[in-house]
Amino acid sequence: MKLLLTAFDPFGGEAVNPALEAVKMVRPVVSAIEVVKLEVPTVFGKAIEKVREAIEEIQPDVVLCIGQAGGRFDISVERVAINIDDARIADNEGNQPIDCTIVVDGPPAYFATIPIKAIVDTIRKIGLPSSVSNTAGTFVCNHLMYGVLHTLALQDKPMRGGFIHVPFIPAQVVARPNAPCMSLSDIVRALEAAITAIGSFTDDVKLAGGKEF
Amino acid sequence: MKLLLTAFDPFGGEAVNPALEAVKMVRPVVSAIEVVKLEVPTVFGKAIEKVREAIEEIQPDVVLCIGQAGGRFDISVERVAINIDDARIADNEGNQPIDCTIVVDGPPAYFATIPIKAIVDTIRKIGLPSSVSNTAGTFVCNHLMYGVLHTLALQDKPMRGGFIHVPFIPAQVVARPNAPCMSLSDIVRALEAAITAIGSFTDDVKLAGGKEF
Amino acid sequence: MKLLLTAFDPFGGEAVNPALEAVKMVRPVVSAIEVVKLEVPTVFGKAIEKVREAIEEIQPDVVLCIGQAGGRFDISVERVAINIDDARIADNEGNQPIDCTIVVDGPPAYFATIPIKAIVDTIRKIGLPSSVSNTAGTFVCNHLMYGVLHTLALQDKPMRGGFIHVPFIPAQVVARPNAPCMSLSDIVRALEAAITAIGSFTDDVKLAGGKEF
Amino acid sequence: MKLLLTAFDPFGGEAVNPALEAVKMVRPVVSAIEVVKLEVPTVFGKAIEKVREAIEEIQPDVVLCIGQAGGRFDISVERVAINIDDARIADNEGNQPIDCTIVVDGPPAYFATIPIKAIVDTIRKIGLPSSVSNTAGTFVCNHLMYGVLHTLALQDKPMRGGFIHVPFIPAQVVARPNAPCMSLSDIVRALEAAITAIGSFTDDVKLAGGKEF
Repeated sequence: MKLLLTAFDPFGGEAVNPALEAVKMVRPVVSAIEVVKLEVPTVFGKAIEKVREAIEEIQPDVVLCIGQAGGRFDISVERVAINIDDARIADNEGNQPIDCTIVVDGPPAYFATIPIKAIVDTIRKIGLPSSVSNTAGTFVCNHLMYGVLHTLALQDKPMRGGFIHVPFIPAQVVARPNAPCMSLSDIVRALEAAITAIGSFTDDVKLAGGKEF
Repeated sequence: MKLLLTAFDPFGGEAVNPALEAVKMVRPVVSAIEVVKLEVPTVFGKAIEKVREAIEEIQPDVVLCIGQAGGRFDISVERVAINIDDARIADNEGNQPIDCTIVVDGPPAYFATIPIKAIVDTIRKIGLPSSVSNTAGTFVCNHLMYGVLHTLALQDKPMRGGFIHVPFIPAQVVARPNAPCMSLSDIVRALEAAITAIGSFTDDVKLAGGKEF
Repeated sequence: MKLLLTAFDPFGGEAVNPALEAVKMVRPVVSAIEVVKLEVPTVFGKAIEKVREAIEEIQPDVVLCIGQAGGRFDISVERVAINIDDARIADNEGNQPIDCTIVVDGPPAYFATIPIKAIVDTIRKIGLPSSVSNTAGTFVCNHLMYGVLHTLALQDKPMRGGFIHVPFIPAQVVARPNAPCMSLSDIVRALEAAITAIGSFTDDVKLAGGKEF
Repeated sequence: MKLLLTAFDPFGGEAVNPALEAVKMVRPVVSAIEVVKLEVPTVFGKAIEKVREAIEEIQPDVVLCIGQAGGRFDISVERVAINIDDARIADNEGNQPIDCTIVVDGPPAYFATIPIKAIVDTIRKIGLPSSVSNTAGTFVCNHLMYGVLHTLALQDKPMRGGFIHVPFIPAQVVARPNAPCMSLSDIVRALEAAITAIGSFTDDVKLAGGKEF
């Protein structure tokens, strides 16, 4: 099995992106799955384009995108991407779309096709906090997740895809009182656990993991 | 203009539902809009059924559903409902669906058709906190929002619909340290402002209101 | 019984101070207690000086000081003031003392002499969240609480004193996502309940109200 | 220099106490300071007694007590201990004192005599979040800190003392949504940095580190 693992470059004034730092440290083979890594610009349009080219070249079985969710407490596995760009801040090239459709005539949303509940369960079993998230936001993370799932839906070969958000690392919260963080090595362990779960579960497991709101 | 305003009964062990208490106090006519109120059971399936019957009987121009989001800080106007039920807790009749489709062959999501940015802006202008939310959860609130928007999409007459989540009221947080709340009278003022905005804006305004995640 | 009720002017860039706005709205007589109000500058030294002069002139039975604790969720009744000034931000005249003693040769701390548990209990009974706080910070609020309790300890006539922190009001959090608030009218009701409790309880009640940290 | 490093056993239903686990992993000599470790029961009275005996036996230059502050985000260095026990929950032997003086005729508070600002600064410089805390609560942590500082004040030989609170470790928050944590290895690094700072600074540094409330 071949897995394309992407991560964004730093954005929003941060010096690092913990998603990118963690992806660099993930082993090249995890549970017999070949991991091909790709850095992606935090730029609307270009992000999708770069991953689409890699998909065509690498022909992976799975595309797993990783992004920073500064302020979240745990490894959050995204359930769904919605067909809208609505940027509160500018991306790395100054774009700030407001309420724009990502793919004209595309469906309103795509659900992740990786086993989100099994991933959460596997990460928790190694002692790290994780949960299903029902929103990937409306910035470049959701944009890329939507674009990748749309791309995968159009392939002849069946390919699965999904998105995982990771917290700040400790160095990013030294000057931010009361912001949660997770150590880089724990993030790496969580991502490798996620990859293992993706390799082990074709269908997802039936575990409660919803939210009231 | 006629607006159907719904609110859930108490759930999750609460003695009251602030959404329901607030809806009872909304004036019957707000900014020349006739407001018809409906209490809805916090029960999968039955919630949609009850509102669907009211829509057929009342033939409103707008359906606005209100729910409690205990733990949220502000009046949150939902952007999107997704086609999934995933209950962390049981509903008021003991149902706890996990990862079930709401409408088989329905679209993956529906976007609200009320002017969400204009509503947020109008509520803020009367001095109350409000924001766009990109997830209505996966419990009965999202379920009803999806079901109502699906129902409205199938009507001959154009009808708009949406969902607003309101915080706990103070009495609900007396025994909950560090839980945010909003006074009932402020929630009522916010809902009336929302109704006014719905009457004033057919198309939404272009204001930044997205989130990074 | 005569109660001197003080509140600070706005600080930290805020347009209003909810403590001051609430104090203005407290009735002049609450539960047969005469309430004398005083606005106090958010300035080290001058704050204590102004209240000391009022104490000498008014000869109150109780001095109750009110301050803003933006970010706190409830009405917090302070248990203790410590003999240190340590300002993270400048006061309203640009002073920013770091780790300075408030009263040289003063005791390390003063405990409030108002019935803090009875006040919390009375506020909760009217349906509003309240708790005992074990720190009034190290800015002008703690400074004034320490200075007032020191002043009262030196009086011939027995006088009781204490400090209550109140949350932001809604207008202050419109531009602050995920900040808690309380409506001004609820703050006023809470302060009047506190005054009533002070009049009713000479000794405090024995109720659990501590914190692990 | 000889430093007595204490940590509590698990309490409040937890399986582990991160303070104890971290202390076990601190090296026996840190920056030429000999570290003597002591496990302390989370029991009013007995906690102080056990540390007092160790002080008499070991004759340390510094006593540094470590406790768990589940819910805090960073390594918090306590500034002050107050002369009161007020337990919200029972200790490990079922004691739950409410508003009791720790030492009759003792001063109302003791300030830490370790360099709290220098410790915070040193921990931040290795990339971990840390801050000064102005309350150690009113449970066994504050109780021990007060008791130790009182004991040290009565010694002939000058001895310094203080208290540091550490967050939950990841395994403790797997079943606690939205609770902050810090990896055990980062807590260990922070404690060793604190010990290094204690060895390097006899007088504290003048850095802003206060709080408004």
